[in-house]
Amino acid sequence: MTEKRITIVEKILDANDRLASENRRRLNENTIFAINLMASPGAGKTSLILATIHALLDQSVPIGVIEGDTAPVTIDADKISAVGMPVVQINTGGECHLDAVMVENALDQLPLATLDLVIVENVGNLICPAAFKLGTHSNVLIASVPEGDDKPYKYPNIYRGLDVLIINKIDLLPYLDFDMDYFRQGVEMLNPGLKTFALSCKTGEGLEAWLSWLQATKPS
Amino acid sequence: MTEKRITIVEKILDANDRLASENRRRLNENTIFAINLMASPGAGKTSLILATIHALLDQSVPIGVIEGDTAPVTIDADKISAVGMPVVQINTGGECHLDAVMVENALDQLPLATLDLVIVENVGNLICPAAFKLGTHSNVLIASVPEGDDKPYKYPNIYRGLDVLIINKIDLLPYLDFDMDYFRQGVEMLNPGLKTFALSCKTGEGLEAWLSWLQATKPS
Repeated sequence: MTEKRITIVEKILDANDRLASENRRRLNENTIFAINLMASPGAGKTSLILATIHALLDQSVPIGVIEGDTAPVTIDADKISAVGMPVVQINTGGECHLDAVMVENALDQLPLATLDLVIVENVGNLICPAAFKLGTHSNVLIASVPEGDDKPYKYPNIYRGLDVLIINKIDLLPYLDFDMDYFRQGVEMLNPGLKTFALSCKTGEGLEAWLSWLQATKPS
Repeated sequence: MTEKRITIVEKILDANDRLASENRRRLNENTIFAINLMASPGAGKTSLILATIHALLDQSVPIGVIEGDTAPVTIDADKISAVGMPVVQINTGGECHLDAVMVENALDQLPLATLDLVIVENVGNLICPAAFKLGTHSNVLIASVPEGDDKPYKYPNIYRGLDVLIINKIDLLPYLDFDMDYFRQGVEMLNPGLKTFALSCKTGEGLEAWLSWLQATKPS
């Protein structure tokens, strides 16, 4: 029973990986840099996307957004739409992660030839999104300091697969018992030398370093 | 393809429900009140359990705890153990929720005849735990205010199935843009009249009402 189950899961992941490669090829053809943005519910995914759009608008960087939601609510998609960027919402219908076929369908609806950057906002969850490649170039996780300093220890799989870590809501640090050294030790153990930005989407502190990295990393 | 998939999922949930009924029967035989405690990562599940144990210890209420973790880390289980209560850890091995068979196995390892209350700490996730009954008597969700006031709108399934809602970390409200009316409207729409406690596990504010409810609800 267990063996059979494992075989089925492996086949699903194999099929997903093939589609993810196809998505990557398509993004590359259009010289688009794409991010898979993951986090717990309420860690600040949409806030980071909005802050990034606002800052890069001045530099005429066209950004497309794919919004993953587990329910048919357009709260986040409406916020992106309101700042004039193309956005496609994926309603997973209760599924707890995005997969490559959902992203493929969303890419069909974005004006790829006109975009420099695509940000995929994954479903708010630290577990399932870690297993499914989407074809994006960079796995970015937002850790929100009110969640506590033990999250790398408790959700190691998602930290292992990251390219970039963002520590958000640092404006709340004075009011929390958050041991930054303990947190960073946990991260270092799982993903040595991981590129990390500590910032606050609310106050803007630390955003500059993230934006500079993004500008330097995306194809010009 | 979709029909077949739905059939398989329904069969899994049917089998889970049967086992959940068996767990419920066993809990009732032992006059135990059991809670399925759900939340996002870092919302304060273990903190609430510890605060509840500390308060009820004085009143000689023996509490067993089942700790659901997605990785083999004993951070939370160690904290419960340190206060002298029996605790069983379930490592789901990457699975994003507990199910009835995991809880059945955990119940085997608890001294049921000596317990009044069992608290099951589900995996930190707002999506998948909503679909799997465990046999517990009460579904309790902790919403943490730093996660934002839009969570009921974005994760409606988990709110629909709740018996009790706890709004935690209210000590942080002065530093957040959290619209309590908007949050409560979302909850009311999904689960009218839901029993709700606003509290802070850190300062102790509001804990009394939760503890009184628990004392009044569990079999004496």
